[in-house]
Amino acid sequence: MKRIGMLTSGGDCQALNTAMRGVAKTLFNAKEQVEIYGFLNGYQGLIYGKFRLLTGADFAGILTKGGTFLGSSRTPFKTIREPGEDGIDKVAAMKQTYYKLQLDCLVILGGNGTHKTANLLREEGLNIVTLPKTIDNDLWGTDMTFGFQSAVNVATDCIDCIHTTAASHGRVFIVEVMGHKAGWLTLNAGMAGGADIILIPEIPYDIDKVAKKIKQRHETGSRFTILAVAEGAISKEDAALSKKEYKKKLANRKYPSVSYELAAQLQEKCGYDVRVTVPGHTQRGGSPCPYDRVFASRLGSEAAELILKGEYGFMVGYKNREIVKVPLEDVAGKLKMVDPNASIVKEAKLLGISFGD
Amino acid sequence: MKRIGMLTSGGDCQALNTAMRGVAKTLFNAKEQVEIYGFLNGYQGLIYGKFRLLTGADFAGILTKGGTFLGSSRTPFKTIREPGEDGIDKVAAMKQTYYKLQLDCLVILGGNGTHKTANLLREEGLNIVTLPKTIDNDLWGTDMTFGFQSAVNVATDCIDCIHTTAASHGRVFIVEVMGHKAGWLTLNAGMAGGADIILIPEIPYDIDKVAKKIKQRHETGSRFTILAVAEGAISKEDAALSKKEYKKKLANRKYPSVSYELAAQLQEKCGYDVRVTVPGHTQRGGSPCPYDRVFASRLGSEAAELILKGEYGFMVGYKNREIVKVPLEDVAGKLKMVDPNASIVKEAKLLGISFGD
Amino acid sequence: MKRIGMLTSGGDCQALNTAMRGVAKTLFNAKEQVEIYGFLNGYQGLIYGKFRLLTGADFAGILTKGGTFLGSSRTPFKTIREPGEDGIDKVAAMKQTYYKLQLDCLVILGGNGTHKTANLLREEGLNIVTLPKTIDNDLWGTDMTFGFQSAVNVATDCIDCIHTTAASHGRVFIVEVMGHKAGWLTLNAGMAGGADIILIPEIPYDIDKVAKKIKQRHETGSRFTILAVAEGAISKEDAALSKKEYKKKLANRKYPSVSYELAAQLQEKCGYDVRVTVPGHTQRGGSPCPYDRVFASRLGSEAAELILKGEYGFMVGYKNREIVKVPLEDVAGKLKMVDPNASIVKEAKLLGISFGD
Amino acid sequence: MKRIGMLTSGGDCQALNTAMRGVAKTLFNAKEQVEIYGFLNGYQGLIYGKFRLLTGADFAGILTKGGTFLGSSRTPFKTIREPGEDGIDKVAAMKQTYYKLQLDCLVILGGNGTHKTANLLREEGLNIVTLPKTIDNDLWGTDMTFGFQSAVNVATDCIDCIHTTAASHGRVFIVEVMGHKAGWLTLNAGMAGGADIILIPEIPYDIDKVAKKIKQRHETGSRFTILAVAEGAISKEDAALSKKEYKKKLANRKYPSVSYELAAQLQEKCGYDVRVTVPGHTQRGGSPCPYDRVFASRLGSEAAELILKGEYGFMVGYKNREIVKVPLEDVAGKLKMVDPNASIVKEAKLLGISFGD
Repeated sequence: MKRIGMLTSGGDCQALNTAMRGVAKTLFNAKEQVEIYGFLNGYQGLIYGKFRLLTGADFAGILTKGGTFLGSSRTPFKTIREPGEDGIDKVAAMKQTYYKLQLDCLVILGGNGTHKTANLLREEGLNIVTLPKTIDNDLWGTDMTFGFQSAVNVATDCIDCIHTTAASHGRVFIVEVMGHKAGWLTLNAGMAGGADIILIPEIPYDIDKVAKKIKQRHETGSRFTILAVAEGAISKEDAALSKKEYKKKLANRKYPSVSYELAAQLQEKCGYDVRVTVPGHTQRGGSPCPYDRVFASRLGSEAAELILKGEYGFMVGYKNREIVKVPLEDVAGKLKMVDPNASIVKEAKLLGISFGD
Repeated sequence: MKRIGMLTSGGDCQALNTAMRGVAKTLFNAKEQVEIYGFLNGYQGLIYGKFRLLTGADFAGILTKGGTFLGSSRTPFKTIREPGEDGIDKVAAMKQTYYKLQLDCLVILGGNGTHKTANLLREEGLNIVTLPKTIDNDLWGTDMTFGFQSAVNVATDCIDCIHTTAASHGRVFIVEVMGHKAGWLTLNAGMAGGADIILIPEIPYDIDKVAKKIKQRHETGSRFTILAVAEGAISKEDAALSKKEYKKKLANRKYPSVSYELAAQLQEKCGYDVRVTVPGHTQRGGSPCPYDRVFASRLGSEAAELILKGEYGFMVGYKNREIVKVPLEDVAGKLKMVDPNASIVKEAKLLGISFGD
Repeated sequence: MKRIGMLTSGGDCQALNTAMRGVAKTLFNAKEQVEIYGFLNGYQGLIYGKFRLLTGADFAGILTKGGTFLGSSRTPFKTIREPGEDGIDKVAAMKQTYYKLQLDCLVILGGNGTHKTANLLREEGLNIVTLPKTIDNDLWGTDMTFGFQSAVNVATDCIDCIHTTAASHGRVFIVEVMGHKAGWLTLNAGMAGGADIILIPEIPYDIDKVAKKIKQRHETGSRFTILAVAEGAISKEDAALSKKEYKKKLANRKYPSVSYELAAQLQEKCGYDVRVTVPGHTQRGGSPCPYDRVFASRLGSEAAELILKGEYGFMVGYKNREIVKVPLEDVAGKLKMVDPNASIVKEAKLLGISFGD
Repeated sequence: MKRIGMLTSGGDCQALNTAMRGVAKTLFNAKEQVEIYGFLNGYQGLIYGKFRLLTGADFAGILTKGGTFLGSSRTPFKTIREPGEDGIDKVAAMKQTYYKLQLDCLVILGGNGTHKTANLLREEGLNIVTLPKTIDNDLWGTDMTFGFQSAVNVATDCIDCIHTTAASHGRVFIVEVMGHKAGWLTLNAGMAGGADIILIPEIPYDIDKVAKKIKQRHETGSRFTILAVAEGAISKEDAALSKKEYKKKLANRKYPSVSYELAAQLQEKCGYDVRVTVPGHTQRGGSPCPYDRVFASRLGSEAAELILKGEYGFMVGYKNREIVKVPLEDVAGKLKMVDPNASIVKEAKLLGISFGD
């Protein structure tokens, strides 16, 4: 018999339930008997021993349901070695729960932060298998993460809706897309929604070039301009600052986000009415799209296969259209960013999209 | 032969194109020959004589397209009697265009502000037929406006998406729904999306009752609370202020909107993490829903019937499931608000929804 | 304390769960204590005593879920007085279950057939409150049924999809919409989807007029024609037959449905390639649209109010934008059909839509 | 200056307009001057010289529109060398149009049949660049075709809708998914929709194993079973027949498609009510999904790059996440089928899905 723990950590996204269903169905269909313990609200459940034994009924009908039925929470890696407010030693507590339940393996679904902690637990001797969850698609070691395509769909729907109103009123619209560090989501939603300007963290922008593009469009008869702007979009000027200086500048910014600052700057430079839309957390929500459902199901069943074979210490990823296992130590602490020279960026530019660079 | 002018004014919404197609198809199918002149960007096109003769091709394929192919603009009624920046007498200019083109009638699609100007033009002697367009559903004289149901759908989708993420993280979420004066959109989207608390302009809220409801929910095991809040939601305190005092207070508010202010207050009072989502202009955009398509088509064809019969000075409205003509002087300057004692409000409360009152 | 039974009967539709949630939330929020017993699979559960006590958890998260968590079945009214295959006296068995459980009232959600049985149970002395569920919108005594608008949305989506392929290939397409007796769904989806021809049971068609319309369109430059055809669409010829003759003819029809027969006839008469699409049961499925969610929630809470007041023997309906109670004896056995002279039919014709009459 | 011809051929699909916009935007943004001639209705336009010079306006607003604004038609490769009904030599006529217009290159968007003709034209000396369009994803030489993911979405929506009704009534449902030769669409939509049984042409089924799976499910408490069945699903028995014998058998089949035959067989073998849904051409229609929009835009711009560089004789494809050029002679006449031993099939089986093998 195998005893498996399972948890979802970090910001939620679409297809978390799908992936867990994939793991569980495969385990329950295996010849070996398996028990699955679900920890509530991410690493918190592991730390404080909050869990329950899961049965087939827990996984029925969740293929298409957004969110995570186990709940999630952010447990910052930075402070994982520090005692909690209640004085608890978090790492020790997690290990204790693991050993007390005599687990053979922990299945952890999460993004970048989650993987750092997962790798730490591996280094501490626990058996870990992880699944790459994030709407940002910025996990190192996998071409794709689940949640990403569903989030692209939500953000694109938003740009589609803005398109009709922008065209009717002859306005400039900024749609702020999630992504503080990586621009994958903004880039794809921007291209899919027909944005005229795309600003992402990896390609710092020159505000004057952005303004020029807008003016050019309006001078050549286009009544409106749509900008897809990542939360982490940054000007060339700011990109030249030290990390510390930039953080300080951000902290003093009088606008709630880069989009509002950009709107004010562009309104001044161009003279057009600039509006901001922030779909925000809707990008994480709703039913996973068919692509994510198939993808997360496949990853989940392969994760179960690893567990059944006793191969631990891996993230189940996707490379060159093959499902692969990637050593956790290779994944943890790295980010997969948009390469400014990537083929997709070149193609976007050929289509006439400006990155403000 | 009949010569008809057509324009769309004010904030755009779904089914404007649908309604215009309804008018045009019916006119083009009539025995009498008809010419339709489309004015660009609302009353601006009428003032400055910017128009073009429309043909069947202009109305092909637009049944399902959001926005307005004629463009729109806001032309404030307050200053309609004042000369423009260019010194132009706006009312005189509109009349001049009308008579120069020898129009038999102007078809005007718009909301509250638009109807005030439309009625003024009627008083000035022009033949006018109007159609009730607004996502706010606050036009007097009609049970329903087109755009409303489509906007309810967009706002509800947003709440649906937030539901999964709220449930996963155990958070309080505020979804800010459009509507500065009337709460129809927030009320319907809130009920459809399963919001726990709905705040609308017509029912001023007590912040302590709102906070209490949230705490009660969390104490009885609900991990999250969703608030649907209208842009114009107002506290009992603020509702007691004079209009002038309230405007002054709003101008000094350090938050971009009521939702952000509420979030700060509730976070302090409850201690939970409160997040804000602002779908904004997406609520006006995208393809009209089937309900609006049928409704706007019907209104459009009845407007054409009035024109063919030479019955002018009416808005085509909807009362008790019948399409009716409503004298413009009855419509202009009035608003249709949610009655705090209405059946639907009572039912929402029976379902356990709090209005904070 | 009140003891309430609840069941859903007949073909399922969207918002059944929503309506039951509305009833239950209102009952559970009432001062009086209430127990709700859910019968499984419609009247079958009542006949065979298959039920369970429902709790708040049963109604959590079902606002947006299609189908019915209680299950449903068709229990033909025609044979309700005849013994079942197992020799059971169905009516007696239903009464026995009712009295054994000491129920104060049965809440029954269903369409036409369901209401006949519900009324029979009322006549037998049981306390009954019903809710009008059907995608057909053909229940007498209410302007609207829940499920209808959601089904319109699904059928319209289907026509929208067909539009692009029809336009690309220059073909004639028939979309077969649900509705054996009433044409509401076909009429509304047809208008919303921009169908060129709409055939419904209430307006028998002349095949030559249908063919003529198609030829006219193609001769005047339209590359395609879309027909929205109700399952129960009928030719003038067939409408003239006696019911018995028509049934016999139908039984011998070599096509699976009227659409396939029409396709063959039109292909022969016009020479164009005619394709058939049958969305079928998808029209009953999926998440209820926001309109249905609000509507069903409101009806549900009003049904609960009636129960709490002890007012039995009614269907909760909707007339002239008011929620009303309609005596069951008035509802049972009647149908609400499309009036060929109704305003909406006239408007559809003004828009250029042919009904083949 | 470059003179480019463009046509879309074969069954339409989503993102054809998107791809053409990608080609045109890139060409119009190039330094060199370019003229694009659009041929109407596929190869027919090339044969009969029906074309028009396209401008920027033709490509505006079509990113999100389904279908093809150029129209399409099926021009069977089998008879391409035979004279048409009007005695015309089709190949000679196509060449004549090409040379008369002094084209530098023809951009052809199509699937398998289209590529055979495209390759023939290349052999005849014309400069050709093609784009891989098909909802079937069965083109050799590319990991992905545009239209596929959008079709998966439509078919999955259909299965999602059926899920709620199947669960409510405890029935067996067959959803017939497009695909006569390849099972990609059925496999992906089936997995995404949570089908219990998936039948595809590449994996012949044993009807008794299918029936057994259904019975097993019902015996272990599942109230319903959903089958995703490809149009070209085939039994082991039939797969053993010679091609000629099978064609003969198909011609005599009394059911309109395999699904209806299966339904009859399973109803007899299992005793459950089996229903069939045929989404049909809706799978080709509607707005392309964001994935297809990005993908088709990228392919289109790379096709334009090839043209600008004068590299002809290629299909622009996608291999291992790179956009590649594939020699037309390698593509023509081959099919990319689902490998019964592929990883995705194994994973589907691990999830408990039966292929009836």
